[in-house]
Amino acid sequence: MLRAILERTGDASYALLGPGDDAAVISAPSGSVVATTDTLVHGPDFRLAWSNGFDLGWKSAAVNLSDVAAMGARPTALLVALAVPRETRLSFVERMAEGFRAACDALAPGCAVVGGDLTVSDTLTVAVTALGDLEGRAAVTRSGARAGDVVAIAGNMGVSARGLSLLFERFRTDGEPVPVDATVLDAGELGAVAAQLRPEPPISLGPVAARAGATAMMDVSDGLVLDAGRMATASGITIDIDSATLGENPQRALSGGEDHALLATFPAGAVPEGFRVIGAVRPRREHGVLCDGEAVDAAGWDPYRDWDSSTG
Amino acid sequence: MLRAILERTGDASYALLGPGDDAAVISAPSGSVVATTDTLVHGPDFRLAWSNGFDLGWKSAAVNLSDVAAMGARPTALLVALAVPRETRLSFVERMAEGFRAACDALAPGCAVVGGDLTVSDTLTVAVTALGDLEGRAAVTRSGARAGDVVAIAGNMGVSARGLSLLFERFRTDGEPVPVDATVLDAGELGAVAAQLRPEPPISLGPVAARAGATAMMDVSDGLVLDAGRMATASGITIDIDSATLGENPQRALSGGEDHALLATFPAGAVPEGFRVIGAVRPRREHGVLCDGEAVDAAGWDPYRDWDSSTG
Repeated sequence: MLRAILERTGDASYALLGPGDDAAVISAPSGSVVATTDTLVHGPDFRLAWSNGFDLGWKSAAVNLSDVAAMGARPTALLVALAVPRETRLSFVERMAEGFRAACDALAPGCAVVGGDLTVSDTLTVAVTALGDLEGRAAVTRSGARAGDVVAIAGNMGVSARGLSLLFERFRTDGEPVPVDATVLDAGELGAVAAQLRPEPPISLGPVAARAGATAMMDVSDGLVLDAGRMATASGITIDIDSATLGENPQRALSGGEDHALLATFPAGAVPEGFRVIGAVRPRREHGVLCDGEAVDAAGWDPYRDWDSSTG
Repeated sequence: MLRAILERTGDASYALLGPGDDAAVISAPSGSVVATTDTLVHGPDFRLAWSNGFDLGWKSAAVNLSDVAAMGARPTALLVALAVPRETRLSFVERMAEGFRAACDALAPGCAVVGGDLTVSDTLTVAVTALGDLEGRAAVTRSGARAGDVVAIAGNMGVSARGLSLLFERFRTDGEPVPVDATVLDAGELGAVAAQLRPEPPISLGPVAARAGATAMMDVSDGLVLDAGRMATASGITIDIDSATLGENPQRALSGGEDHALLATFPAGAVPEGFRVIGAVRPRREHGVLCDGEAVDAAGWDPYRDWDSSTG
């Protein structure tokens, strides 16, 4: 069954030795390797009522590729540790493998699954490790943002959260798969659900940002305010977001998780194509994240913050 | 809680950037990286009735370090993806972290946990990825054994299986932890149980074998006959084991799993210190593995194979 994944590895440009031995060997041309691991567990992280095998493979790959890109690195390889219930069908694992491959081909060409492990577990669990190469550049950490930099983002803000809300609202189920189709969703809603189930983070823009001189960068997985707050703390600065850049639902843009957008800071004038400016880096204030100069909590920006219904 | 692991990383000689960002950066001085992943799941792979947190951390590290060593590489880094039940105590995770660290310090100095992920799951699952550096050498695969080579091993044969048998025989339990102590085990038995719970594979001998010119190498995790059979198939040869080298319980030495010994083939005369010769590589025959020239099945060598009780 492990073979189902390892035979569908696609274009493994960086694999010097692929699956089949005790370990794989991956090219690390710049003499260092970026490495990250992220796990998806059935229940908290995905529901088989909504995600098929392909979706699960895709998402497991995408969220890990995104962490590599957030360092400014190019993804080179994935390792997949899969724990599946005994009754899992081979066809499900095959579809997962196709999801891994399709995500790599679409988001990080040349990266592929180079190794894996398959065990039996009552709880379907997908632990993926992604490796990447810095191509001779320094890693872009969270701690390099400086007052005077601009804050920019590449990718979605709040779209995945919208998709998750739609799934909960319209596709509640107690276990059986439900078809998520166009008969009950309009085009925008379908796009939001797709962003939740098969996210397409802007992996290739990680190295682009690094080359452009990004001073700090990270993957927005837990929501913009929470993650920007982490960058602000690591860098010892405050990030002030301009609410006019947040689109039609600013609260969701500020608090929605799982978009895997790339949040980066650049010297003014250095923002590369693909990123859009959403704010500015200020000297550290009491709060790490502001919106239009005002404090904003991790639960998201509240458009009614100063609204008092008794006074209007 | 993840911090409990990441704050106990020990001597991370190869970590250019440790935990705390989207990904770690690990030195890969020879321009390539060896990578492997292996998962331990509560139930099939360990029992909390027998293993405490320290044991689980140690074993999860050791089995992955062994796969790196089996390529002839020096382990440089571990990434730990931990999925734990909601009620798991912080102290358990802290003990696991100490187990990871102690195993690295004892078995692969300079290697340390550089990154991780913590999620909630009904099933305690530890997925570890190990990275390693080949120090400029070619990887030693399973496929390079040639007729005329000698077959050698470093590490235990059947000891871990003996330990597991003892645990099943004398410490059966339906969930509650049982003390595994000297009051019911003699010194040899205690050693066997320790080898099962906290294996000490000969990690440093992986690079030693590679430098000595090992033609093939692998980690013996599923038992000598099964794993030697894989090497024989990959190399297109037959491995003939000398039963006189198998110790007091040849059947267990042939079939017992989880010892994580290093099985290697060398040109005659090139066997380095730490390895002992257990057989010879022959041109391919019908069977991939022989014992004293006779077929031996994967279930292990049967000392009564030619015994007929009716004729004596």
